[in-house]
Amino acid sequence: MAPVLYDLEVSGNCYKVRLLCALLGVPLQLVPVDFLAGDHKKPPVSDLNPFGELPVFKDGDLVLRDSQAILVYIARKWGGETWFPTDAAEMARVCEWLMVAANEIARGPNDARLHDKFGYDLDLGVARAKSARILGLMDAHLARTPWLALDRPTIADIACMPYVAIGHEGGVTLENYPAVAAWVQRIKSLPGFITMPAL
Amino acid sequence: MAPVLYDLEVSGNCYKVRLLCALLGVPLQLVPVDFLAGDHKKPPVSDLNPFGELPVFKDGDLVLRDSQAILVYIARKWGGETWFPTDAAEMARVCEWLMVAANEIARGPNDARLHDKFGYDLDLGVARAKSARILGLMDAHLARTPWLALDRPTIADIACMPYVAIGHEGGVTLENYPAVAAWVQRIKSLPGFITMPAL
Repeated sequence: MAPVLYDLEVSGNCYKVRLLCALLGVPLQLVPVDFLAGDHKKPPVSDLNPFGELPVFKDGDLVLRDSQAILVYIARKWGGETWFPTDAAEMARVCEWLMVAANEIARGPNDARLHDKFGYDLDLGVARAKSARILGLMDAHLARTPWLALDRPTIADIACMPYVAIGHEGGVTLENYPAVAAWVQRIKSLPGFITMPAL
Repeated sequence: MAPVLYDLEVSGNCYKVRLLCALLGVPLQLVPVDFLAGDHKKPPVSDLNPFGELPVFKDGDLVLRDSQAILVYIARKWGGETWFPTDAAEMARVCEWLMVAANEIARGPNDARLHDKFGYDLDLGVARAKSARILGLMDAHLARTPWLALDRPTIADIACMPYVAIGHEGGVTLENYPAVAAWVQRIKSLPGFITMPAL
């Protein structure tokens, strides 16, 4: 049985999971969830994830929440040592950027998009300022290295790319961040790459 | 040479690193950083960590930022399979809670404390509401299981505990969350436990 993804097409967090599975050739059963109807906050989804959020991932009896944790699972189970290696230093280097996805990018470009595209009651000024800060840090970093964490693409890149690349839906463009824009293009050129709306 | 921690005593993120090292018997060279003087945003710290944040961890030539990523490194290097196991499902389960530390707890009790104790310009109402939500979710979870991720303490517990346990410095108490309060006590009873101010 292929693993199941409770999915929302326009969610960057769901897209991360679809993208890594596509790159690794892991088949997925997609279960679209009606977000506007609030179905992510109702059973069966809320029974699987008390946080009431998407994505939710199910592989046999195992149920996982949080897109970054799901990437870790998929990379460990199907990706060998490539996408999330077990060496302490390499793993920690990848984790530095998983945390940037969960923190700085979530509170920057993701929040700006939630405000502009979905009408969330968020402080847009704060989200824009956080976006500028993290994009500046990423641009300086990516001017020196092609991939965020290691000498090859890892789940660090998969975790951080979506909300950076669709930030224009929240008024956050990559115009002043050429190294970030080039990195997004490198990810788009990976064999097996799939896209999402607005990307 | 023992690894080096650029440290701030009142930082829960620095404390996480000190605590895991104490539990594992890993010696640390502490380098106190004068936070009020802004030394975390100046060389040598800002050269080591462009994010200008503490903790910064140095083991030989390896320099790491982000407390959760540092926990991952220490657990992988010195903790065997106990604190951050390599099994895909177990590792992902721990990562779910590392992300809660980086996201929900950072934007909840940590932000409330930054506002109240350190005068940060943050929306206290948002931080208090996020605190109530995550503490409610954690309390329901911890009413059913003694540790956050697995059947034993892991870095999930070390990552999530500090800002939950010192949330009272931001007006976020555990009065209505008995299962969370009991979990904090279980962590305090671990052999080798060390404390921090206000805990």
